[in-house]
Amino acid sequence: MNNELWFHELHTEHVNFSFRVEKQLYSATSDYQRIEVYSTPEFGRVLILDGVIMCTEKDEFIYHDMIVHVPLAVNPEIKSVLLIGGGDGGALRELCRYPTIEQIELVEIDEMVVQAAKDYLPTLATAYDDPRVQVIIADGLRYVRRKADQYDLIIVDSTDPFGPGESLFTKEFYGNCYKAMKADGILVNQHESPFYRQEAREAKLTHRRMKQVFEVNRVYQAHIPTYPSGHWLFGFSSKGLDPLQDFKPEVWKAFDLRTRYYNTDVHVGAFMLPNYVLELIGEKQA
Amino acid sequence: MNNELWFHELHTEHVNFSFRVEKQLYSATSDYQRIEVYSTPEFGRVLILDGVIMCTEKDEFIYHDMIVHVPLAVNPEIKSVLLIGGGDGGALRELCRYPTIEQIELVEIDEMVVQAAKDYLPTLATAYDDPRVQVIIADGLRYVRRKADQYDLIIVDSTDPFGPGESLFTKEFYGNCYKAMKADGILVNQHESPFYRQEAREAKLTHRRMKQVFEVNRVYQAHIPTYPSGHWLFGFSSKGLDPLQDFKPEVWKAFDLRTRYYNTDVHVGAFMLPNYVLELIGEKQA
Repeated sequence: MNNELWFHELHTEHVNFSFRVEKQLYSATSDYQRIEVYSTPEFGRVLILDGVIMCTEKDEFIYHDMIVHVPLAVNPEIKSVLLIGGGDGGALRELCRYPTIEQIELVEIDEMVVQAAKDYLPTLATAYDDPRVQVIIADGLRYVRRKADQYDLIIVDSTDPFGPGESLFTKEFYGNCYKAMKADGILVNQHESPFYRQEAREAKLTHRRMKQVFEVNRVYQAHIPTYPSGHWLFGFSSKGLDPLQDFKPEVWKAFDLRTRYYNTDVHVGAFMLPNYVLELIGEKQA
Repeated sequence: MNNELWFHELHTEHVNFSFRVEKQLYSATSDYQRIEVYSTPEFGRVLILDGVIMCTEKDEFIYHDMIVHVPLAVNPEIKSVLLIGGGDGGALRELCRYPTIEQIELVEIDEMVVQAAKDYLPTLATAYDDPRVQVIIADGLRYVRRKADQYDLIIVDSTDPFGPGESLFTKEFYGNCYKAMKADGILVNQHESPFYRQEAREAKLTHRRMKQVFEVNRVYQAHIPTYPSGHWLFGFSSKGLDPLQDFKPEVWKAFDLRTRYYNTDVHVGAFMLPNYVLELIGEKQA
């Protein structure tokens, strides 16, 4: 391979992750952020927002499996879903595999991300035409303010809390989500990473804020190779449902979904956090 | 930080991981490999063999916790240990925390790695003076050939199967280890990674070879940020002991060891492998 075009992402001031690029497929600046899509020999197509990898065709299945199937295996009767962010379409694709889900509102602030996904990420943006899906171009924080007692599941599939995603990591936002959820509702969000200082600080603050709002707050993890450190966290919060005590592996298996990362063992193992992560988020060690 | 000295490691032909370097502390070429030690702002001191990160002060605790404490929590009565490789001293340090272990033979092919660790990695090479430790500079494959029915635990803490570590991934070596182990013996080895093609291929082949030799063969995982993909595998093989069925969390807790990664929940979760990893190693999905 003679092509020496490389994309670089600084994971910290002192750590750089880069990958070879075949071609820049799309590049534009929206009202909110810079959007780029590349084709690459290692990762397939890669979506970049403000210089940060959002997803790659090679490993997006890990993130999207873990943000969708974990809550669905705790409450397999989820019917009404609010998906905030997620313009790439990956979480939507996984949600639409459940025939039992009746309605999905996708609230994405940046219409240009949705369009870029439709145009350049055909393996992710597969479900935008599903009749159960309503796409709302709006600010997630403002949108959820007006809602009450409506959703079985809220997924916050946001960028990092630096830039347009910032308001989705505030106590005000979590309070509004709490109100918008039904009594057995679940909120799942991307929860940053425990390893490098900046993401670890955000993971700690996020968990603390969520504990001020929700009765149940658990953190789970996945191996996502193209995110900084490869060790990524998710938050599971609810008014009462516990991700392990209320886990329904047999009901989930009956959906008969083929998944490449998630399985009912991984569900359990994902909540088994290392001591340094427990310490970071202020939870007791096993 | 004005220092623009960076170390680069290609994870694949198309993926590069690099980190800023404060200073090169050591650089030499032994009969077996090129050895380098750097001080870095992100990872502390870093040991490099043949251009590949072996360990960093920031995350070596993860690898060494998982290669030592997992077998010790399955058989807490381990007394006689053979450690092959591991010249950096990290696995030795963790083993020496068990007062119940009576004897550890460290067989390292490259004396210069041991010396570099003693001189430049003081947080790892803490246990070389422990009276239970015998350091043998030798080829692991040849050394273990002469042994029979002697060890409760064999740890293969090797480099990748390209270069001096190659013979430690052969069926002949595993057969010799089998003979060298007692009836309730355990072999644990670093088992490469499931994500990038080259390591995935080696993980698959290694698991297949071990299954031809041992009765019990399980693979477990850890989040190791400075290894390619951050998703690293270990092998647990034995003549009968199962890492979950024979797991003794309460006995292990009674050792009262403080660990930063391992805990008795992580022990269980580490064996909960994603579907794509199960598929790679030819095991059944949950």
